[in-house]
Order: sequence, then C-alpha cells, then structure tokens
Amino acid sequence: MTELNATHDPDRQSWLESANEPDCDFPIQNLPHGVFCWPGEAPRGGVAIGDAILDMATAVEAGLFAGIPAEAARAAAEPSLNRLMAMGNGAASALRARISDILRADHPDAARFAAMAQRILVPMEDVEMRLPAGIGAFTDFFTSSYHTERGRRARGEEPALPPNFQYLPIAYNSRASSVRVSGEAVRRPNGQRQRADGTVAFGPCEGQDFELELGIFVGPGNMLGEPIPLRAAPEHIWGFCLVNDWSARDIQRWESTPLGPFLSKSLSTSISPWVVTAEALAPFRAPALVRPAGDPAPLPHLAHDQDQRLGGFDIDLEAWLLTPDMAASEEEPARITRTNFRHMYWTLGQMLTHHASNGCNLQPGDLIASGTASGPTDESRACMAEMTRGRDPITLPNGETRIWLQDGDEVILRGRAHRRGHVGIGFGECRGRIDPALAWPA
Amino acid sequence: MTELNATHDPDRQSWLESANEPDCDFPIQNLPHGVFCWPGEAPRGGVAIGDAILDMATAVEAGLFAGIPAEAARAAAEPSLNRLMAMGNGAASALRARISDILRADHPDAARFAAMAQRILVPMEDVEMRLPAGIGAFTDFFTSSYHTERGRRARGEEPALPPNFQYLPIAYNSRASSVRVSGEAVRRPNGQRQRADGTVAFGPCEGQDFELELGIFVGPGNMLGEPIPLRAAPEHIWGFCLVNDWSARDIQRWESTPLGPFLSKSLSTSISPWVVTAEALAPFRAPALVRPAGDPAPLPHLAHDQDQRLGGFDIDLEAWLLTPDMAASEEEPARITRTNFRHMYWTLGQMLTHHASNGCNLQPGDLIASGTASGPTDESRACMAEMTRGRDPITLPNGETRIWLQDGDEVILRGRAHRRGHVGIGFGECRGRIDPALAWPA
Repeated sequence: MTELNATHDPDRQSWLESANEPDCDFPIQNLPHGVFCWPGEAPRGGVAIGDAILDMATAVEAGLFAGIPAEAARAAAEPSLNRLMAMGNGAASALRARISDILRADHPDAARFAAMAQRILVPMEDVEMRLPAGIGAFTDFFTSSYHTERGRRARGEEPALPPNFQYLPIAYNSRASSVRVSGEAVRRPNGQRQRADGTVAFGPCEGQDFELELGIFVGPGNMLGEPIPLRAAPEHIWGFCLVNDWSARDIQRWESTPLGPFLSKSLSTSISPWVVTAEALAPFRAPALVRPAGDPAPLPHLAHDQDQRLGGFDIDLEAWLLTPDMAASEEEPARITRTNFRHMYWTLGQMLTHHASNGCNLQPGDLIASGTASGPTDESRACMAEMTRGRDPITLPNGETRIWLQDGDEVILRGRAHRRGHVGIGFGECRGRIDPALAWPA
Repeated sequence: MTELNATHDPDRQSWLESANEPDCDFPIQNLPHGVFCWPGEAPRGGVAIGDAILDMATAVEAGLFAGIPAEAARAAAEPSLNRLMAMGNGAASALRARISDILRADHPDAARFAAMAQRILVPMEDVEMRLPAGIGAFTDFFTSSYHTERGRRARGEEPALPPNFQYLPIAYNSRASSVRVSGEAVRRPNGQRQRADGTVAFGPCEGQDFELELGIFVGPGNMLGEPIPLRAAPEHIWGFCLVNDWSARDIQRWESTPLGPFLSKSLSTSISPWVVTAEALAPFRAPALVRPAGDPAPLPHLAHDQDQRLGGFDIDLEAWLLTPDMAASEEEPARITRTNFRHMYWTLGQMLTHHASNGCNLQPGDLIASGTASGPTDESRACMAEMTRGRDPITLPNGETRIWLQDGDEVILRGRAHRRGHVGIGFGECRGRIDPALAWPA
C-alpha cells in the first residue's frame, strides 16, 4: 500500500496561487497527468496545477529533471502516456516528488522556478485536452450491488442479484476505439429495438442514458498466461479517471441476450482528461465494503488479507445535467446524482486480479471501469434507468422532466476525494452532449 | 462485388514449381499476406507462394514495383499490415496484379524474375510467422443457427434460437490482447465454476474447448458516428483468416449471465498467419443462406439487394485433433469437424454493417470473427460442446475418447476454397496445443 509522504503534506502550497484556493481540483497534492494540445498543434503531455498545466516537454528542456525523474518526465511529455504507465508506480512516484518540489512555495529554489512560469506553465483555458493514452482495451465491470439490484427489479428479474455476483466481479469487454475525451459531442446512435407489440424496428435510440463510473488505467500489466495475485494488483493500478459509459437502453435490452451488451455501449464512452495517480489518492483509501451478513466470503484468490484490507477508495462522485433550455437561460447545471465509490461490492484490486486470473494479458494504458457507481440512497442512483425505470420522469429545477436524455442534453461528471486532515483533490470534469442521430445513409 | 481478372486465371502458373502442385494452399491465384521473421530478427511482411514467401522488403529494394503498387508494396513489407489494410482493396488489388506478374511463368520477364528467386524468396520452413497486424479490437459474432440451436438444446434452453437471432447478427466484444498466431501454445486457464452441488470453486478449467471460425481483417473502416451501409461493406473487408476461439466452457457457463463471456474467451485466441485477400476469394462467392420459411426478412439496412446477393462464401473448414498418444505413435491427426462457411445465417457484410450501425468506429486491422461455423450435419459440428454436450465422448481412430480437450492435445484448423473451373486456394493451418494450467501463485 502506498505510504504517505511529503507530497501529501496538507501544509504544502504552490507558488502558483490558483492551486491554493479552497475547492481547487488541482492543488499541489494532486498533480494528475494528461495530454493537451494548442489548437491545430501536436499533442503533448502535461501535469495539472491550479488553473494551469505544467508543459512537461518544456520543463524537461529547461533542465528541471535529472536521474529517474528525468526518464519518467520524458515519458510524461509524450503525446500519449502509455510509456509512462508502463514504467510503473515507482517511476511515477519519483516524478511526482520532483514536480511537487518544482511547484511548491517553500522550496529553496521556488523563486527561480516561479520566474520560469511563463515558459513552463500553460493556461488550461487556452488548450484542448486529448485522450491521455492509447487505449488498447476497455473493460467495463458491474460491481455496484445497488445498481444491479435496482436494474433487475425494474425489469422484474429474480433474484435481485445474479447468482455469480457475490463470487466474482462481473465484467464484459467493451469497445476501446470509441472511448473519447471529455467535451466531444456524443452522437445519438441508430439501432434495433423490440417494441411493446413485439415488432422490431431500426432507428434513433429511444432510451439514451449515461452511467457514472470510476476508471483506472493499467500500469505495467502482465504477460499472457501469467496471472496477477491480489497482493500485486496495486502495482498495476496506475491512475484514475471519471468514465461516462453512455448506454442506449432500448438497444441494450434487445441485443444483450445471450452474449451481453454490444452496440448499446460502443456508440461512445467519455472519460475525464486528467489521470489522478494512485499515489495522489493514497490518503483517501478506505476499507473494502463490509459484505452483508450471509453473503459468501470471497474465494481465497480474491480475498484481501489483513495488510490489504484498505482495498476501497472514498471518492465522491456526482452527475449534473444541463439541458438546452437551462443553457439558453444561463442556469447552472442540476445535480442529479451524488454517490461515493465506497459503495462498490468489489475493490479495484479484486477486479484486476479477476481479470488476469485466466492469464489474460493486461497492458499499459488499458482502461478498466468499475460499472455504474450507485449507492444505497435515491440520491446515489448513478444512471437514468435507476432513477426513472424508463417510466417515472425526474423533474429538474426549472420544471423540465426527463425519462431519458434528449438531444442537446449535456451530462457533466465530477469526482472529488476529501478527508479531514488532508487537502481535497478533484478529477476535473467529464462532459458530453447528445447530438441528434444521423439519418441512415440512402 | 470484386470482378474476376487475370490474377484468377486458372491456367496461370508460377515459375516456382511448388506453387503449381495440386492441393497446394498457396498457388499463384492466392497470394495471401503475412508477417514472418528469421529467428531472433525483426518481423517483415511477405506474400505466400507455394512453399516460399516473397520477402516484400527485398522485392521492393530490387526495384520490382513502381506507381501505386510500389506504395502498397512498401506497406506490405512492414512488420504489421495495418497500413496496407488502411489503403483499402484497390491498393491491394493493384499490388496483387503486380505480384502475380512477378511470379507467373508466362510473363515476358519471367526468366529474369526467376533468377532473383534466391534473393526475393524465403523458404517458409526456415522462418517463424507473427501476427499479421496490430489488432486494435477483436469482435466475435455468433451467426451459425446450427451452433446456436445445438448449444441451447444441450443446456435445455428454449426457444432453440434467442428471439433476436434472426433480426441481428449477435456479437460481443472479445479480447484483442490475447489474440496470437498459429503455433503458440495455449495455457489452460484457471477460473471459477459452479459445481453440480452448487458450490463455487477456482482452479484449472475442466471444459477446455475449441471453436472453428472464419475471421476477417477490417480495411479502411469508418469515423466514429458514421455508419457503413451494406453496399459499402465490401470495401472494408480486407482479408480472411482462420480463428480458433478457445473457450473454457465451465468458466463460460458460470460467468456469462448477464453480461456475456469474458475470461472464458480471453485466455487466448489463435489465428492462421496468412491473410487471404477478399479478391483472392472472389471466385468462391456464394449466395447468402436462404432463410427457412417463416423466418423474418432482414430489416432494410441489413437486406442484401439484387446486386449484393452473393454475400456468402463457399469455403470448406475443418478441425483436426492430434493427441499426445497419437503424436507419440506418429499417427496423423484425426479430422473431427468438416463444415462450410455457406451455412452461416448472416453474411460478413451484414455483420460489418450491423457492427458500425450505431456509429462505432471500425479501424484497420480490427479482427472480426464469424462465430463457430457449424453446419446442419453431425460431421459439421465445429466445437466439442456440440459434439459431446459435455457428457457423450467422441472416439478417435486410435480408440482414445474425449469429452473436452486434455493437456497436450493439439487442434489444427484448415480452410480451403475450391470450385469447378477455378484453382483451389487454402488458408494454411491454425494450430494450438493445450499446456497444463499454472498453479496459482503462492
């Protein structure tokens, strides 16, 4: 388990004032990695600090890194972070320590570093974000018992949890090619559905939903045929992001039996651009969920032992909705979900170990999402299907109602970890707006 | 639809004698692309001819290509064929025409080309094959009604076909990272299963199976959000290979509800190394399967019109089994499956159009497999689950029996297209042997 160190010191501040404001997502204790570009130019790696980005290539050129941090800094400057992820958490940690030193207010050379701000810092608002890594595989889990139970009850399925739910973290392979970064519009898909009268039709999705999830990027990974025991799983969890697993519910319901969701998911998946490292989240670890009495214990290969019992993470997750009417009248988005990652039945380590337990090779930059992160309360329902069951609309502050997402609706995901005695850190936003379906080509 | 041309001429022969032998998989009418390497050296692109490989890099250096074929030839020399696939079937066709000229016996310059054989040809037996492309995504379909019906009947599921089977080609995203080339051993996976008494256990797979499938490599592909109408699908079907979709049936049965197969498939998928181009298969096109009376017609976007009615392919597919006992006594492998790709309920074009119908972006080098290619007869059952239903063993010529694959068993897939008036072409072999499971790490 990652130990806390000077980079987590709650008293540490940056010479960049915007990083020290309360509720800033990117204080010096965070330092997430991402890939940005000036409009029309090539992507480059950077680290978020306050309202700015540390341009890693410029910082490397300025001679700010030496030794192991220099090797990692060069990887962090590349147009995709796969090589940095492949170097593992040790390299990321060495790099973090040096970046924290460069940016902190009380470093002996702070005045010199601050004088370089114009050269090495980029205003976040001036640039566009890109996918942080080339994503070779995208796996989506299904590990909130609350999400699972609500969905099955709404469809009249018994028992409330599938028989395997408590024995293994259920997952499916989703589509990596259609994962995209926050801010890109999401085209409403065409697809097949079965109508109430039994006939089957093809046309624009009539049940467009979002799903609020947490995702991880895989670090070094494993060779084909060689599993990852649970105690080694943390070495392969490189960083975290928010995931909106857009879901076309009418298409999903018709296509998913017997081989699972396919086109209902591959229309697009949006992720937040900043990858929060495992080390930055170390202060926010939490015990794994306590299983309800009577549930089976995990099989030995999935059982957290005493040293690993902090398998969970205490991360607040929110979804907000901005409709075209709200945007036109300059209203704020409305919060429609407030949940916490603590509610997941399985830990990320258990998900990773299960994933590789047959020898399946995980690779640097693979994206693994948790599944809809719903909790026990109504407020914590993390997708429209749970809120409306496809028939009972939610009412927004301006009086509008929604059963599913309409064209022009924008969903904004936010995530934040905070705990007494620590500086809270944020994930930034994951935004996506629904564009109207295309007419089928004549 | 690809027209036949001089490269298909059944009278055309090569100055390389091995290519002219009857039943040769790689006559001059075939010319499949692949990637090979000398032991310990870097991979390089080549084209199979008889018992040799045309080393594309050497052929390019020798000045044998000019114009569009030269551009394609350079892509065909690379260590992965993604760029060649991205160039589309037009470029592949121009390259094929030139390679056929270089290798044919009756070309005016044949003597000059033949004199270069030592330089540009590599003996197939001296080199190792590699994956032909970087596979960004692997999608597995489920489009044989015979396979589907036998499986559901064996499990007591009703109706014999899922309700959506006749409306859409059912598919799931499978795992791309564990796709490997013929000849690499396949490690028996560990995994979870539910025993007959209801308890759940983790350990070596007790139901290791194979699945005989045909696969295609995607050519140019589509942009996210923009579908591929059926009439355009052939432009994106670049080439064909054999696929062994290794399946762990006990793991599959326990994990697959509700989100489909996951670890039961990602242990490994083996493919044949040579990619037979769509143009090479043009003489073996066949009408799409005639749907049984009473089946619904495809919805308009999946309906082959008059010009596209030859959506099927007439390709013989076989699976052979070689047990350790048979190998020790130098027996030949035993053929356990003989089927034909004509039996599939959906065409490859329909699969591709369905896959992109929601806007999902297909990319050069994506692998799309047909699903187990079983036909109506007992001989055409294309996996062990259909043959044995998990309880009735098959008996091999030497008296051995099998319900599932045992450690050391090697499965060999073969494919061949032939038709009166044309020279038959083959796919080469797709081989894989089962290695014992690893003990779980202590």
